[in-house]
Amino acid sequence: MKPMALHPVILCGGSGTRLWPLSRDAHPKQLLAILGHESLLAATIRRASGSVFAPPVVVCNEAHVAAVTRQMQGIGVAPAAVIVEPTARNTAPAIAAAAHWLAASDPKALMLVLPSDHLIGDEAAYRTAVDAAAAAAKAGWLVTFGVTPTLPETGYGYIRSGEPIEGLEGAYRIEQFVEKPDLGTAERYLTSGDWSWNTGMFVFPAARMLAELARFEPELVTQVAAAIEQGSASGGSLALAGPAFAAAPSISIDRALMERTQAAAVIPASLNWSDVGSWAALWETSDRDENANVVVGDVMSEQTTGSYLRSEGPLIAALGLQDVVIVATGDIVLAAPRDRAQEVKAFVERLRKAGRPDLL
Amino acid sequence: MKPMALHPVILCGGSGTRLWPLSRDAHPKQLLAILGHESLLAATIRRASGSVFAPPVVVCNEAHVAAVTRQMQGIGVAPAAVIVEPTARNTAPAIAAAAHWLAASDPKALMLVLPSDHLIGDEAAYRTAVDAAAAAAKAGWLVTFGVTPTLPETGYGYIRSGEPIEGLEGAYRIEQFVEKPDLGTAERYLTSGDWSWNTGMFVFPAARMLAELARFEPELVTQVAAAIEQGSASGGSLALAGPAFAAAPSISIDRALMERTQAAAVIPASLNWSDVGSWAALWETSDRDENANVVVGDVMSEQTTGSYLRSEGPLIAALGLQDVVIVATGDIVLAAPRDRAQEVKAFVERLRKAGRPDLL
Repeated sequence: MKPMALHPVILCGGSGTRLWPLSRDAHPKQLLAILGHESLLAATIRRASGSVFAPPVVVCNEAHVAAVTRQMQGIGVAPAAVIVEPTARNTAPAIAAAAHWLAASDPKALMLVLPSDHLIGDEAAYRTAVDAAAAAAKAGWLVTFGVTPTLPETGYGYIRSGEPIEGLEGAYRIEQFVEKPDLGTAERYLTSGDWSWNTGMFVFPAARMLAELARFEPELVTQVAAAIEQGSASGGSLALAGPAFAAAPSISIDRALMERTQAAAVIPASLNWSDVGSWAALWETSDRDENANVVVGDVMSEQTTGSYLRSEGPLIAALGLQDVVIVATGDIVLAAPRDRAQEVKAFVERLRKAGRPDLL
Repeated sequence: MKPMALHPVILCGGSGTRLWPLSRDAHPKQLLAILGHESLLAATIRRASGSVFAPPVVVCNEAHVAAVTRQMQGIGVAPAAVIVEPTARNTAPAIAAAAHWLAASDPKALMLVLPSDHLIGDEAAYRTAVDAAAAAAKAGWLVTFGVTPTLPETGYGYIRSGEPIEGLEGAYRIEQFVEKPDLGTAERYLTSGDWSWNTGMFVFPAARMLAELARFEPELVTQVAAAIEQGSASGGSLALAGPAFAAAPSISIDRALMERTQAAAVIPASLNWSDVGSWAALWETSDRDENANVVVGDVMSEQTTGSYLRSEGPLIAALGLQDVVIVATGDIVLAAPRDRAQEVKAFVERLRKAGRPDLL
């Protein structure tokens, strides 16, 4: 199949409190070198660079424009545009804004929508899946990437593949979406072969996607269009107009579009993918030592197993602990059982109420 | 009983690695406000102040003279002398040096030997016990304070009381010393009523004690005398001569004297005492909240019970943990189960081998 130009749209608006205390308001997860030396954003952009890709469109929060720009300069990638959200409105308005911007200059533009804070271990499989998705999108389908489950994850959304789509290798109609199933259900999905994890990565024909979205969420498309028209461009960035954008409903692209349209397709693939949605997920994804520990930074352990031990400064001395997460920054120490590490948001909420923004 | 002048001898030479990372080479346990606002040293000196007490003699390590002097100035107590040990030689040489110094000016001097790093909760009981011990020492006995056990502690030494000593209320001959019994034995001791914890606090007639010690450890007494004679006095401090003091055997006063002499007596008492020998002991001794946690400093906890959570700087956020110790200084985070917290010495040894004195 002949490669075709795809416009990467990098969604960089997340706040990522589930990796607190490393992920902070000013430095959310996607901007951190959470695994190795490269930030998740940089890795996402790198994976969407090369001859088949147009320069990326980045959608991000006002507070992170400077950091995003700095990171892109660091990896030598000039964005086609940085679209700045004045407020967070979930994924549908962000994607609609990028689609609107792309379709204005090229009505046939294909967009590759990528969250900026995911890990993909198998980049060859990713390239193959992107090619297949682009082919399906070129044929008019609204395509999502599914990941073949490797664990009965209860924190993810699942997609059930339906009939294969004729003439489009690897693409299936979508039969059903299920959000966060219980463990028994997730175990059935794992063995059935019909189900994929919902990754939040898509390939869309931009104009077609907008038209379809307008059928279900006309107000959203209208307000986003107004936010672009009334927005202010300077340098390579486009600041969306605050009042119009705030008037768009805050809704995910799955809920707004994918669960409703007849044009939805899925490309299931084994990408060795993770949304890095918790310290436990990061432990799963990382290389572990002979004690099944993941150790980052200045750490000494004794008779400690199955743990994620990470320091950004102080020495962590861990003794006699099993399956815990300990993360120490210069100003915060988090300690929790690994399987409850996703509950750190409780601390984030308490600190927000307590008026301690320096720790958020 | 008429109160009599007692010379407190404060043993301040300990290194206290069992409360690492708070207790450090430069700031050992006794110099820290480990419980409340007063250091253990300051509390010890305060308890040995007042009309019945002469000014204290403090025996400490060269490295801590400045800090000890500063703390004594802070509480407005001028020592009779600060005896500086060039090397640590356990308690017998330290006590012998103080006895020698005291006996030189007053052959009838009674010395009250006090470790500087213990907690005493019941100060009235302590005063009563001190009076009884002084009376027995005046009659020629070498007196140790026993503490009536409240737990089957396996980390302590135990003393078995023998016959009551006639005419000396509360004083008993010593029948047996047992160091660190197993749990079954400790449980028997707890219920028998004959056994006390060995506290390492003593009242001695100084000259008599030296004479008796010289019977069992003549070289020790000779070398300590030489270390004083060859030592250098300046201001209120007396630096013991290094070579002579180093030639004294490194041995505890129990081993050198108390387990051998026929003049040993014990005063059992309920002092609400702790040697604060581990984080677990400190948890036992401290006030606990409704979740049985001891919380010191900037700490947030969720569903955490039975734990000792102490920060000297960073926020500790503890979630879903039971019976752990977490201690965070600016440069170290310790995490361990409470009942294994005494094993922190493993880290101290590793850091010493690794050449990281800044963390010791």
